[in-house]
Amino acid sequence: MNTLLAAIADCVQPQMQGVERLFHQELKSEVACVNTLVKHVSRFRGKMLRPLLVLLSGRACGKLTDDHVTIATVVEMVHMATLVHDDVLDEAELRRKGATINHLRGNEAAVLLGDYLISHSYHLCSSLDSQYASRLIGRTTNQVCEGELLQIDNRNNWDLDEETYLRIISLKTASLCAACCSLGAKLAGASDADITRLETYGWSLGTAFQIQDDILDVIGDARTVGKTLGIDVEKGKMTLPMIHFLRSAPAEHQLLLRSLLVGKDEDKSERVRNLVLPSQSIPYANDRARQLVDQARAVISELPDSDARRVLDTMAEFVVTRAM
Amino acid sequence: MNTLLAAIADCVQPQMQGVERLFHQELKSEVACVNTLVKHVSRFRGKMLRPLLVLLSGRACGKLTDDHVTIATVVEMVHMATLVHDDVLDEAELRRKGATINHLRGNEAAVLLGDYLISHSYHLCSSLDSQYASRLIGRTTNQVCEGELLQIDNRNNWDLDEETYLRIISLKTASLCAACCSLGAKLAGASDADITRLETYGWSLGTAFQIQDDILDVIGDARTVGKTLGIDVEKGKMTLPMIHFLRSAPAEHQLLLRSLLVGKDEDKSERVRNLVLPSQSIPYANDRARQLVDQARAVISELPDSDARRVLDTMAEFVVTRAM
Repeated sequence: MNTLLAAIADCVQPQMQGVERLFHQELKSEVACVNTLVKHVSRFRGKMLRPLLVLLSGRACGKLTDDHVTIATVVEMVHMATLVHDDVLDEAELRRKGATINHLRGNEAAVLLGDYLISHSYHLCSSLDSQYASRLIGRTTNQVCEGELLQIDNRNNWDLDEETYLRIISLKTASLCAACCSLGAKLAGASDADITRLETYGWSLGTAFQIQDDILDVIGDARTVGKTLGIDVEKGKMTLPMIHFLRSAPAEHQLLLRSLLVGKDEDKSERVRNLVLPSQSIPYANDRARQLVDQARAVISELPDSDARRVLDTMAEFVVTRAM
Repeated sequence: MNTLLAAIADCVQPQMQGVERLFHQELKSEVACVNTLVKHVSRFRGKMLRPLLVLLSGRACGKLTDDHVTIATVVEMVHMATLVHDDVLDEAELRRKGATINHLRGNEAAVLLGDYLISHSYHLCSSLDSQYASRLIGRTTNQVCEGELLQIDNRNNWDLDEETYLRIISLKTASLCAACCSLGAKLAGASDADITRLETYGWSLGTAFQIQDDILDVIGDARTVGKTLGIDVEKGKMTLPMIHFLRSAPAEHQLLLRSLLVGKDEDKSERVRNLVLPSQSIPYANDRARQLVDQARAVISELPDSDARRVLDTMAEFVVTRAM
């Protein structure tokens, strides 16, 4: 992990600092109360995965430009908007080890603050000379919304199949990661073939990332992960380990899981965890994530060797080995 | 009213039908449940004020193009997104004489559907050749969010002054109307002076429109207006009639209004209505709206005479005489 961070710093540190600066500059308001809220949201900042994907994809294909910093800032704002709106949706009590916006200021402020972030992301994106990025970001956020809507439409659907699950996470998570990588490559003047390679890398990595997130929601340690766990079960959201369990576990275990999912026990998510943990369903989900990571690594192995490519390779590996 | 509608039809009917088509085409999804929600949202459609402002401003300055239809659709989507998110905010029970999205499908669907609308509005906007509209729409939605955030920051602030009230409605309502008019003019190839004229017209009309909306929330008839009234009082939102009342009414009336506003009486909004209705505060707010409408009409009187200009003139008048 520390080696990865050092390698990232070598590749893109000045640009990451540029993202930091631009983020605050773009969100600054003449309305005092808006700045107070934005200050709070900055504490939500996470792994900065998406800006890193833009910058490293760019560096792996050519030279970084100011436009890379702009787009890296745009995608982080888009991602944060979804986090802030997810807090309205999920009533999660912890996020990034801080109180959530909706607990501090009510659902209304959370809705509006998410809107403020998304509006500024598009506004910032429109500052580029070409419409290319605006179009791709617009198409991607359309997909993110579709994924989220498909997800809540399948709430409490215990019969959700793996194909629909994959469609949901492809839309809501992988599409943005794919856009980050393909935009990074495009802005560095990459060939169409390399843009497609990085798009595939981003999609595979994003899908694996979400599967790992869903695994951690079942088996993770809340203090390490830094957010409330067991949320998926509480919210009737079926994820890959559950889907596998309900088609592969011994019949009586399947029945038990179904009754737990439907029930309203206070220790529901812990009982689900105790049931699913020793089964083959966690290894199954791990394997699926691992296959996607292998696919991501294979596709970028076709790029010329570079520090940035090696960091992208290590990041893909990190996605499935991380415990947070 | 019927004369106005006929005049509008003469000016921009084919383009309004184009807006209708493009709206459905852009929002169509491959995800079935999304289409079901979007179908429902179409019932929310209101007066189509904002698309009309784009088209009539364009026609008053020159020829209408396909880009006018695109932008007219974009601004309607932006407006509908704010309505859908307002339903999360306001818990309004009636909107456009239909059930609200959040009552039908929960707050989560309302948040996501609003996000879907806003995402598609930017996506559609990015389909134009130039970034001009994307930049202006982005800047405008930034302002709309700031206005809404400033508004909730002043919830239950009974000492809200008229200046801050005007700043709130300028940001949250007038800015979008101003953008509609200036974009309509710009896309028709208007001179900078005429673009500024129409921007001023849109801003004045939008501000007057919001003042009238706020007056109707106090004195309107729920069946005519088509949405729950008295919401502002229930939600601790101070509007112009209240602000005037609390600085101008006899001292004991001011005290009574304050105690009503702070209190939790079930018939609170009716008692506020009965107190404010016979005072000078409704005429005062009407006068302010009237001044703004006069300003809007004066500024477009400098444009060459045309059917479209006359319709814009009548629309400005309608804003303050409407009962819905």
